[in-house]
Amino acid sequence: MSPSPSAPDRQREEASALCRVIAMIHQRGWCDGTGGNFSTVISGAPLELLMAPSGVDKGALAPEDLIVVDEEGRIIRGDGKASAETLLHLAIIATTNARAVLHTHSQAATLLSRLPLLGGGKLGAGGQASSAEAELIGHLKLGGLEMLKGLEGIHTHAHTIAIPIVANCQDMRRLEQATRPHLAAAPFGVLIAGHGLYAWGDSLLQARRHLEILEFLLEQHWRQVLLEAVLAKGALSA
Amino acid sequence: MSPSPSAPDRQREEASALCRVIAMIHQRGWCDGTGGNFSTVISGAPLELLMAPSGVDKGALAPEDLIVVDEEGRIIRGDGKASAETLLHLAIIATTNARAVLHTHSQAATLLSRLPLLGGGKLGAGGQASSAEAELIGHLKLGGLEMLKGLEGIHTHAHTIAIPIVANCQDMRRLEQATRPHLAAAPFGVLIAGHGLYAWGDSLLQARRHLEILEFLLEQHWRQVLLEAVLAKGALSA
Amino acid sequence: MSPSPSAPDRQREEASALCRVIAMIHQRGWCDGTGGNFSTVISGAPLELLMAPSGVDKGALAPEDLIVVDEEGRIIRGDGKASAETLLHLAIIATTNARAVLHTHSQAATLLSRLPLLGGGKLGAGGQASSAEAELIGHLKLGGLEMLKGLEGIHTHAHTIAIPIVANCQDMRRLEQATRPHLAAAPFGVLIAGHGLYAWGDSLLQARRHLEILEFLLEQHWRQVLLEAVLAKGALSA
Amino acid sequence: MSPSPSAPDRQREEASALCRVIAMIHQRGWCDGTGGNFSTVISGAPLELLMAPSGVDKGALAPEDLIVVDEEGRIIRGDGKASAETLLHLAIIATTNARAVLHTHSQAATLLSRLPLLGGGKLGAGGQASSAEAELIGHLKLGGLEMLKGLEGIHTHAHTIAIPIVANCQDMRRLEQATRPHLAAAPFGVLIAGHGLYAWGDSLLQARRHLEILEFLLEQHWRQVLLEAVLAKGALSA
Repeated sequence: MSPSPSAPDRQREEASALCRVIAMIHQRGWCDGTGGNFSTVISGAPLELLMAPSGVDKGALAPEDLIVVDEEGRIIRGDGKASAETLLHLAIIATTNARAVLHTHSQAATLLSRLPLLGGGKLGAGGQASSAEAELIGHLKLGGLEMLKGLEGIHTHAHTIAIPIVANCQDMRRLEQATRPHLAAAPFGVLIAGHGLYAWGDSLLQARRHLEILEFLLEQHWRQVLLEAVLAKGALSA
Repeated sequence: MSPSPSAPDRQREEASALCRVIAMIHQRGWCDGTGGNFSTVISGAPLELLMAPSGVDKGALAPEDLIVVDEEGRIIRGDGKASAETLLHLAIIATTNARAVLHTHSQAATLLSRLPLLGGGKLGAGGQASSAEAELIGHLKLGGLEMLKGLEGIHTHAHTIAIPIVANCQDMRRLEQATRPHLAAAPFGVLIAGHGLYAWGDSLLQARRHLEILEFLLEQHWRQVLLEAVLAKGALSA
Repeated sequence: MSPSPSAPDRQREEASALCRVIAMIHQRGWCDGTGGNFSTVISGAPLELLMAPSGVDKGALAPEDLIVVDEEGRIIRGDGKASAETLLHLAIIATTNARAVLHTHSQAATLLSRLPLLGGGKLGAGGQASSAEAELIGHLKLGGLEMLKGLEGIHTHAHTIAIPIVANCQDMRRLEQATRPHLAAAPFGVLIAGHGLYAWGDSLLQARRHLEILEFLLEQHWRQVLLEAVLAKGALSA
Repeated sequence: MSPSPSAPDRQREEASALCRVIAMIHQRGWCDGTGGNFSTVISGAPLELLMAPSGVDKGALAPEDLIVVDEEGRIIRGDGKASAETLLHLAIIATTNARAVLHTHSQAATLLSRLPLLGGGKLGAGGQASSAEAELIGHLKLGGLEMLKGLEGIHTHAHTIAIPIVANCQDMRRLEQATRPHLAAAPFGVLIAGHGLYAWGDSLLQARRHLEILEFLLEQHWRQVLLEAVLAKGALSA
């Protein structure tokens, strides 16, 4: 009979798993320049969140480099600084079934987060410049793609997701409050304009899958927008 | 005298070879988010198909993770779920000389699968939106390229292939029936709209070569369509 | 009690660290064809600069391949040739707080260095062709992006940096003199037209972070310029 | 006293070096689907050319997989088939100072080889379609870039190279005869339309450097053509 692993063992395993996911994300160029932050829940009550510290290169993190924060974002174990964006991780965990949150800065997410789509896949007026900080700008609508089925609960390509886009803000409390109402209905991802993507899942494995799916869909979408514009056909709308 | 390998040994070798091909495909970003599926015939009569299970990350598959299915797509060895798309693998094997089938979700294949070309490389009207599910939308025509010679039986660049594009459908039986009539004449590959590419060959090695060639041609074609559109010259048509 | 490392030990560690950074830069394709040069200060008074020799492949440099130059760019230790561009490294170190300088030849930096932006993110007239050698052409303005915060001292996305662009020149003395007045105000980076990017920081680690941030911003900007042009909306201006 | 290596030792070293270069080329995606071929001279009189065999995957070649051919392209050592394109390798060696020839199928080379530029960097009429097989189509002109200095003998960015583009042909004797007159003046590289790039150098190391430089310049050029076209400014011409 093999006993279930002890809490320290389990935490060590989860730290290793998180480091492997972060290394994959870094290798793909989604968290350059110490950007991005990544967390996984290791205790529900009281809430304990294992995460990468702020301001360090994400290319070579070891399990012992990770920190543990509580439900207020205060460090309870480990050395380093918690990212100010921990508040968004906590809001996502509080309002969805997320147990892991992965925040990336990819080219496609950054580009499309500034191109709000107002309905039906058409490019609308009113970009970030005209939006107040920490307000919902609109939704990026993506549809018609088999890869959507990689998002939990979607069983057909004939589906359109609407990823909320929130105007960026350096006051994390305001940004969190502006984002929170849109999380429950979001397709496991939200865009902060000019900033990047937050993706999540009910496990680290699922969060990773959702991240890969959303990044694929965003990369696909910007090429589609480009091609559609140069062909001026409009035939590819979601 | 070295005896020929026993059946279990041979299957172990084929499982290792398939895992190496899947790892290469994953590394290139052609099967993100647990997408894609991959199979190779290990017995012809009765038919036994070695394949990756559905819904798992394709980045770290070991030979013992693979499953074996029969001619109806039922699992006969191994743990895991067979992909619903196994039906398409079986249809390709039944109607062509394929002994291996590789199904990918690349950016270029997804993009071009929604851009039906109606003859001569020109972009025609009538995208996926206006097509019924599980019907042939058209063919993507590619020509004039030396890399075409990487497809078995093509000996000159002065050749045009026509890759069938079939509208996507979640009823795999219907999708298989819509695709089946177009397989024998297809250039070792077929596109499912908004979904991806199926490529095949008479061995795993040849299937891999055909996949690389078709993905190269698709990546080339979308850049060509883009450049041709912005230059408005039409000089690059196939 | 662990003694502080001796000077030779420290230099060995810094050489290893510089080689690791160069290997990362090479792996990303930012210094193909023996291009690029890279340096870190190992002594301030007198100035000693550890750097990669000129004209060698940067993909497989070992610590013992590095050279040390003095404040005039003369080799004082190691075998090989110092790059003529050492003068620019020295000018950057003399006029900023830089302790490490990384010079890359990426696709995005090369492309954008020839597209001078004259204010407000708009594309202006007067490219390199009309500029005299070794003169300031203009500034590339980038703003509105969270990733800007990866540059030391920038605490909000609501910030616009102006990267100086200097017309290229083979007389390194003239190029250095033309570039020097613009270094102190530069956002840890300067572009030489048709040539590439110089990035720096007050440590090798910070220089690497600044390089990754600037390369990210440049890669983002060319996609933005492209998309903005095909959409003809102007909504993405910095 | 260390003796100079014996001929077999030297050949083993050159085979290892060639395999390392081929692995790098494969890793960059420049010889997918068993495409590309690569050679280095190991004896001048009589001429012996060490090269990769035709029709094999270039991703995992070992030194013992290589073949040696004579001045007529006949195999004199090793197992496998010599590529029909060996004739072009031999023509390049006969008419230039090349001791190594690297032939790649990259996206950028394939794309630009079909976009003949008729003088001054402008896109002219008359693509491949209107050209007879095995005839010079025109030259691709590239200028104004520091990376040009990676080509032996070029000491300033203020230089324009003209890469010959020859229409593809499956009769290798005709293709070789059409290409031969343009080799001596070529900038260490020639494009075969819809096919790819041949690059060379007076050593394997120099050939590799020239290949990386030419591939960089081609990748840069197609982005520049695209951006120039969408901006309709014409300010980036060589």
